[in-house]
Amino acid sequence: MSPAAKTTRRSISDLGPSERFGGSFAIANAQMGRTRNGDPYLKCLLSDKTGRLPARKWSMSEEMFHRLPTDGFVYVEGQTQPYQGELQLIVDIIEPMEPSVDELRELLPATERDVDDMFAQVVSILDTLKHPAMKALAKTYLADEMLMDQFRLAPAAKMMHHAYLGGLLEHTLTLLKIVDAILPLYPKLNRDLVVMGLFLHDLGKTRELVYDKTFSYSDRGELIGHLVEGAIMLHDKAAQTMRAEGVRFPPGAITVLQHIIISHHGLPEYGAAKPPSTPEAIFVSQVDDLDAKTVIALAAARPETERAYDLGGNFTERQWALQNRKLYKPDPLA
Amino acid sequence: MSPAAKTTRRSISDLGPSERFGGSFAIANAQMGRTRNGDPYLKCLLSDKTGRLPARKWSMSEEMFHRLPTDGFVYVEGQTQPYQGELQLIVDIIEPMEPSVDELRELLPATERDVDDMFAQVVSILDTLKHPAMKALAKTYLADEMLMDQFRLAPAAKMMHHAYLGGLLEHTLTLLKIVDAILPLYPKLNRDLVVMGLFLHDLGKTRELVYDKTFSYSDRGELIGHLVEGAIMLHDKAAQTMRAEGVRFPPGAITVLQHIIISHHGLPEYGAAKPPSTPEAIFVSQVDDLDAKTVIALAAARPETERAYDLGGNFTERQWALQNRKLYKPDPLA
Amino acid sequence: MSPAAKTTRRSISDLGPSERFGGSFAIANAQMGRTRNGDPYLKCLLSDKTGRLPARKWSMSEEMFHRLPTDGFVYVEGQTQPYQGELQLIVDIIEPMEPSVDELRELLPATERDVDDMFAQVVSILDTLKHPAMKALAKTYLADEMLMDQFRLAPAAKMMHHAYLGGLLEHTLTLLKIVDAILPLYPKLNRDLVVMGLFLHDLGKTRELVYDKTFSYSDRGELIGHLVEGAIMLHDKAAQTMRAEGVRFPPGAITVLQHIIISHHGLPEYGAAKPPSTPEAIFVSQVDDLDAKTVIALAAARPETERAYDLGGNFTERQWALQNRKLYKPDPLA
Amino acid sequence: MSPAAKTTRRSISDLGPSERFGGSFAIANAQMGRTRNGDPYLKCLLSDKTGRLPARKWSMSEEMFHRLPTDGFVYVEGQTQPYQGELQLIVDIIEPMEPSVDELRELLPATERDVDDMFAQVVSILDTLKHPAMKALAKTYLADEMLMDQFRLAPAAKMMHHAYLGGLLEHTLTLLKIVDAILPLYPKLNRDLVVMGLFLHDLGKTRELVYDKTFSYSDRGELIGHLVEGAIMLHDKAAQTMRAEGVRFPPGAITVLQHIIISHHGLPEYGAAKPPSTPEAIFVSQVDDLDAKTVIALAAARPETERAYDLGGNFTERQWALQNRKLYKPDPLA
Amino acid sequence: MSPAAKTTRRSISDLGPSERFGGSFAIANAQMGRTRNGDPYLKCLLSDKTGRLPARKWSMSEEMFHRLPTDGFVYVEGQTQPYQGELQLIVDIIEPMEPSVDELRELLPATERDVDDMFAQVVSILDTLKHPAMKALAKTYLADEMLMDQFRLAPAAKMMHHAYLGGLLEHTLTLLKIVDAILPLYPKLNRDLVVMGLFLHDLGKTRELVYDKTFSYSDRGELIGHLVEGAIMLHDKAAQTMRAEGVRFPPGAITVLQHIIISHHGLPEYGAAKPPSTPEAIFVSQVDDLDAKTVIALAAARPETERAYDLGGNFTERQWALQNRKLYKPDPLA
Amino acid sequence: MSPAAKTTRRSISDLGPSERFGGSFAIANAQMGRTRNGDPYLKCLLSDKTGRLPARKWSMSEEMFHRLPTDGFVYVEGQTQPYQGELQLIVDIIEPMEPSVDELRELLPATERDVDDMFAQVVSILDTLKHPAMKALAKTYLADEMLMDQFRLAPAAKMMHHAYLGGLLEHTLTLLKIVDAILPLYPKLNRDLVVMGLFLHDLGKTRELVYDKTFSYSDRGELIGHLVEGAIMLHDKAAQTMRAEGVRFPPGAITVLQHIIISHHGLPEYGAAKPPSTPEAIFVSQVDDLDAKTVIALAAARPETERAYDLGGNFTERQWALQNRKLYKPDPLA
Repeated sequence: MSPAAKTTRRSISDLGPSERFGGSFAIANAQMGRTRNGDPYLKCLLSDKTGRLPARKWSMSEEMFHRLPTDGFVYVEGQTQPYQGELQLIVDIIEPMEPSVDELRELLPATERDVDDMFAQVVSILDTLKHPAMKALAKTYLADEMLMDQFRLAPAAKMMHHAYLGGLLEHTLTLLKIVDAILPLYPKLNRDLVVMGLFLHDLGKTRELVYDKTFSYSDRGELIGHLVEGAIMLHDKAAQTMRAEGVRFPPGAITVLQHIIISHHGLPEYGAAKPPSTPEAIFVSQVDDLDAKTVIALAAARPETERAYDLGGNFTERQWALQNRKLYKPDPLA
Repeated sequence: MSPAAKTTRRSISDLGPSERFGGSFAIANAQMGRTRNGDPYLKCLLSDKTGRLPARKWSMSEEMFHRLPTDGFVYVEGQTQPYQGELQLIVDIIEPMEPSVDELRELLPATERDVDDMFAQVVSILDTLKHPAMKALAKTYLADEMLMDQFRLAPAAKMMHHAYLGGLLEHTLTLLKIVDAILPLYPKLNRDLVVMGLFLHDLGKTRELVYDKTFSYSDRGELIGHLVEGAIMLHDKAAQTMRAEGVRFPPGAITVLQHIIISHHGLPEYGAAKPPSTPEAIFVSQVDDLDAKTVIALAAARPETERAYDLGGNFTERQWALQNRKLYKPDPLA
Repeated sequence: MSPAAKTTRRSISDLGPSERFGGSFAIANAQMGRTRNGDPYLKCLLSDKTGRLPARKWSMSEEMFHRLPTDGFVYVEGQTQPYQGELQLIVDIIEPMEPSVDELRELLPATERDVDDMFAQVVSILDTLKHPAMKALAKTYLADEMLMDQFRLAPAAKMMHHAYLGGLLEHTLTLLKIVDAILPLYPKLNRDLVVMGLFLHDLGKTRELVYDKTFSYSDRGELIGHLVEGAIMLHDKAAQTMRAEGVRFPPGAITVLQHIIISHHGLPEYGAAKPPSTPEAIFVSQVDDLDAKTVIALAAARPETERAYDLGGNFTERQWALQNRKLYKPDPLA
Repeated sequence: MSPAAKTTRRSISDLGPSERFGGSFAIANAQMGRTRNGDPYLKCLLSDKTGRLPARKWSMSEEMFHRLPTDGFVYVEGQTQPYQGELQLIVDIIEPMEPSVDELRELLPATERDVDDMFAQVVSILDTLKHPAMKALAKTYLADEMLMDQFRLAPAAKMMHHAYLGGLLEHTLTLLKIVDAILPLYPKLNRDLVVMGLFLHDLGKTRELVYDKTFSYSDRGELIGHLVEGAIMLHDKAAQTMRAEGVRFPPGAITVLQHIIISHHGLPEYGAAKPPSTPEAIFVSQVDDLDAKTVIALAAARPETERAYDLGGNFTERQWALQNRKLYKPDPLA
Repeated sequence: MSPAAKTTRRSISDLGPSERFGGSFAIANAQMGRTRNGDPYLKCLLSDKTGRLPARKWSMSEEMFHRLPTDGFVYVEGQTQPYQGELQLIVDIIEPMEPSVDELRELLPATERDVDDMFAQVVSILDTLKHPAMKALAKTYLADEMLMDQFRLAPAAKMMHHAYLGGLLEHTLTLLKIVDAILPLYPKLNRDLVVMGLFLHDLGKTRELVYDKTFSYSDRGELIGHLVEGAIMLHDKAAQTMRAEGVRFPPGAITVLQHIIISHHGLPEYGAAKPPSTPEAIFVSQVDDLDAKTVIALAAARPETERAYDLGGNFTERQWALQNRKLYKPDPLA
Repeated sequence: MSPAAKTTRRSISDLGPSERFGGSFAIANAQMGRTRNGDPYLKCLLSDKTGRLPARKWSMSEEMFHRLPTDGFVYVEGQTQPYQGELQLIVDIIEPMEPSVDELRELLPATERDVDDMFAQVVSILDTLKHPAMKALAKTYLADEMLMDQFRLAPAAKMMHHAYLGGLLEHTLTLLKIVDAILPLYPKLNRDLVVMGLFLHDLGKTRELVYDKTFSYSDRGELIGHLVEGAIMLHDKAAQTMRAEGVRFPPGAITVLQHIIISHHGLPEYGAAKPPSTPEAIFVSQVDDLDAKTVIALAAARPETERAYDLGGNFTERQWALQNRKLYKPDPLA
């Protein structure tokens, strides 16, 4: 797909000033600017898994612009240029491209854990489901290879923002492990509903819709959201399970699972289409919140790699996802 | 379906003290009480389109109780009894029953307008759709006879609460007439999206789900809600339109319609799964709100029939749906 | 009023680098800066209907500064200068001035529609008022020529911010047309109150107060607001109508109209002095909101002229007036 | 005005079971009920300064009902009757009446302090105003005898609800004394604006409007409110002062005073038409809040006369005006 | 302590109409009423672990009244009386009393689990603390026998309201088990801080203060709250540990533990004195919330013993502690 | 402590471009940056009572960095350098230092009023306390010399932000004077509780904790807050008063004072650990709010010294502490 091979792929973090470069990159924030005399030009951010840099392409027709994805992937050739103490990429050639799964792993940050191993753990927890209809439903999902590929690949948070490939799988597995450990403390909760609900709660992030082949997934994410998406997907999978497996679901079972999915954000102002209104929905929502808040807090206060910009001070920046609080970083017992 | 014909059907409003009665009624708030010595008894409300009275059945097993619908319809025989200045119904026989459409019209309050005429007006506005895919989609919905029957029958608000048969149709028609009149003032709004969005926005209230035959519709309403239900229904109808009519929807068209449906309550705290985020979704949500608020305000301040309990005073009771305000009733120019 | 005629009036959009210019401009954000060695200088924005540029005047006494309006109009002479890739105006002479109506139309953006025609339509809708007291009251307002001139001239939103001359008239006319079209659907609303209420609801934006001749209108706008202003104006006009026309208003009529005016922003947190508490006040508030939200949404998502800075991306910037949402711009059926 | 003198006026607190009574009473919550066979009857509360009792009149035409005030005063004859352990008044004759000021003092609870003395203290604080325009404005208000009579009579809170005659004067005087004592601590506050602002802040509660002679004052209170009313009154009084006294107000002076009046409730959600936005407006609003909250807290926690219904327990009922808190009553140092 | 032994102690649930009874009871809502002729009488609720009934004592001086506890324990003799279909207790003799721990277990509902066993489990989890200063601090707490007795006895929620003896211990143990199970998933959390924080988070509910011997504990609970109480207690225990054990705490360690205690309610509006601002404080707050919400949801939707008053219907009453939601009760897979 | 005396101490406001400087400064916002090639450098702000400038130290090891206080005091030598139109300090030598009280007065802005005189006034108001236990408690506080020194020195608001030395004393004295003047208007308030409560309400800002010698005070301020700190301090002082003076506090007295302290911010969302729930706590909270809001409003609208950046315009910047309002600055009567 690359038009010319004369420039070699260089990682963003390896680029120096005034170098030729070429290869695939993720593109973000693509916008059309106009110079003072009215000529259009392209402004965007180009990234791979090692970093991100601003880019400009000075001659750019509107048609060319509209062929580019707003958030997606491109093949690019050009040259680096120092600008205001930073590097900037001056682009000569830019074209949309569809990365393979392997290319994706080069272009986007990814989990450091073994994806196959994590997936196997999820499957083995699903194996502990007891109710035959739930077992059949899980089987239908697991048999959907394309969906499971996306489940293994998807980030837990929005494509390309503070998230990484495999994040969805990693987050789902952590939640399943938590409930596996603590469900014995709550014998009145239905374990199958909790386990199935957690497996499904974020799956809407991966969905492909037949009637909307060319429509941007992330636009659909904004307009519909993965909660409603997940409920629609379950509607299809339940029908498919009934047809294919001859299973009859107990009355209310699919409704209660859909309810877990569309309510798991807890409060309408956090995106829940309904507030959680069964014991299992409340439990799923709380477990999800526990993991999310803890992971965010640890990422902010005790990051893997010390970030350059907040070495000093005992408090982090304000954390939007934690009611805008600053966190105290030191562990006094460490 | 009635076990014995020796008692004649009497309207609630015609009942006097110490009379035998029998016939079909709507039942609500069915609860099991216990007398001081621990015997279970049934407490409920029985109603028809003319009124509502409290009822008791003194001998009642739990099994019998669980066979009754929480909100639904029953055949009843018994006797009236004065109690604390009101009438109370003492029930001898009570059984679940499924009313026909004609029986329903006896049991529930209904619109005073001609349902066939209103439906014809809706159809004729749908006839003005321009885009072939929208025309095909409307055709699919209109061809679903069972759905259209429910659309003509359903109340606009919750079954049996301050609402009436045909209310959904009446409300939908009013909205379609409003936009038909004022859309010329906003030429940049896509008329097809607005008209189709309004036709579909409340249709989720009518849905029957194959995998949940015996599950209570109103329970599903609480747990899933008619917004998400309407989006799922459109998912099915779009697929059906593609298969049956060979139509290809423009990218994003179904997403944008689903967005109108799940966002039409305006704010998440009012039940929207997403806040309205297209010009058409905002417009639909505002028109719906305009009609709802105006109808509620007029019903409270200028009711058809003077209600006994607030003849006096210039202000109404507090209106929950209007931020708990009291409304000033007089029209000083009248 | 201009001290020297040697420089010709040039539109902002026509100015090139290092040119002499002179003429009348709107001034905004006038502030006094101080250079590092403490000398005061003037920083401000100068605009006409074609655009806006930053300006500086390097020698500036405090007295001269205090003679300038904070938001208003000035005669200016000076020279353009490129600065950080933009043009900047270096001012030699600056003086306050009072533009005529014709000059105003040069200095501020204005409606593209015919003001006389729009005003005639408003008058003809007022002609349909039925109650003699309302007819007399409308006559009193229409007879106030200075007020009607301001009504034809005023923008709908704050002077000089994302608004244009004639905007108030345009907005009022749209609302009157909407209610003219849809009031037949709500026969219990008093049409006279709705029409009169809409005619008056924003008129407070134009008011001149005898006891405060030299006081800045926009300061009064901040401290009192056009809602209370409109209620005070109606207090005067009602008294004048009684005196001049010998009209006696039905009890409560003026109160109910004042209530419509002071409540039309809907909620106290949006600026309503009282929440709307009559059916007509609720209706007026909802219609106003419908038009405002729709116009804002269309202006953001489907602007007249494609703006340079957001050609790309399917979503707009966050819209403060729409609960800070981003809007999806494409019309999938277009 | 009383049709028959054969029954003597008895105070509510003196009435025993099965006694004839007659005389003037305040009426509240007048509503029309219907008996089971559809006959209308009157339900209301009758009170004088000693207490309040429920009343019924069993034969009552709608015309008679509509002649009665919703909240106001009536002449009544009838008989007491025990009902559910309480007394109830069975009315034979009921007619609207207009009490004289002396009768009012019998019918409504009143301040225990000397009204003339309190008024004299207010006048003497107004005498300390320095600016000639403020002095002239105060003179205009004080010269309006009807207004000053109402100022001396009016309760601080809503007519007939937990408030008493003279309450407005008492509250205003307390505030003036507070600021007289503490203004020396804030020399940058303009004393005249604060004193004048406090004198005027609640005066809107007393206003009579020429164009609305027969319209209920309390309905206008609900629809317009005493904040906007007070600003309209100042509009008139300022014009009158200019005409009568030849005074010219400094630019902005009346606006700033009107701003104090319409903002003194502090936040829009507490009824302010604008949030207080000058130092004097903020100070007035805070002083008003300080006195209001303290008086409410003391009345709840340390009432003059121990109330029968909460002798026990260390905490009061929840106080709506104090964010629904319960107050701890004991003074541990007492 | 009982004045007369002629009446035998009967459980509330065993009492029938018109029986003599006598013995110790918990008293709540003690209030002084007045009969119509002004005589004071006592109204209160009397309860033991089997139930609760209303009680009256018709002759009651104010002095006697003030000797009774508002919420506490009394010895009572009297007679049962049917009233409005319920039993009521007519009291002859009532006196304050101080129950022993054994008597308490008769008077208040209690956990069904083994208190000694639960306490041993808490101790064994505390044994796993690693840091010597934390070990020493735990030792100081465990050595305080009076405190540990109260820890074993105290309910988790407010004395006598929907709570039971041993509830605090049961809740604390559940939380410690949860974190013991899932802390390995979050290796960056300091385990000692989490375990110690959870052990201490609700201990403030048990505190006795030397300077306030006779002051009601529950009044202090209302005015200070167990969060601040727990922080004060830790202040003392830390000082004691330093003195007694010669331990030096790492800088910030006690502060961070106090922070966990005063922030564990999550948001200020839920009673947190500071929002949780360390990873451990966030984690503790989330785990506490997870258990509290789950326990409340299960208690409401799947109670131990079917309650008489809501046998019917698929939804519970509104749950105040769950944002006032109604919960769906059925488990569709059961 | 200063390593070299060859550079003389210069005030920030006296520094010119390219000068050597040296001396003690307050340091704030110390952060570690990294240059493009990864070398760490120090970014911070240095200030004394005359102003503040940005500073950089280009070679900086992490160990050196971690020895510096985040907010505190340092000895610095270096050179000024113009940068983007401002001065910047290029640091050669930087070391932590502990300023004496006299040095502090050079480094931080300070009250202009006489600290000894203000303190004497506070003492003389405390002399008017009546209850012997309150007198003894005041004596204990006044006898704590280290605490009283801090009380005289501390700013009222956060160290180094828009606050000044002596500010706490100044604010406390103003409040005591206000209540001294207006308490006679509220005879049911317990004067001792109000006076003592105000004396103590902000004292927590000064506290030193024995178990946390080296722990940053401002970190503790963030995590615990001065409200809870003040309650803990009172816990200690009450115990000390009991021991040293043999005083027995009336039951509830210390609780009620602690309640005043932890509730004085009024609402939980403003930092109160409990909402004020006694008349005295409400009064203290309101008086504190009155002074705080008035002082903030006057400082914004009528500052001592005209600030360069807002000479123009009648409105201030938005004031975060006043619900983000802009204030109108002119006094129209001035």
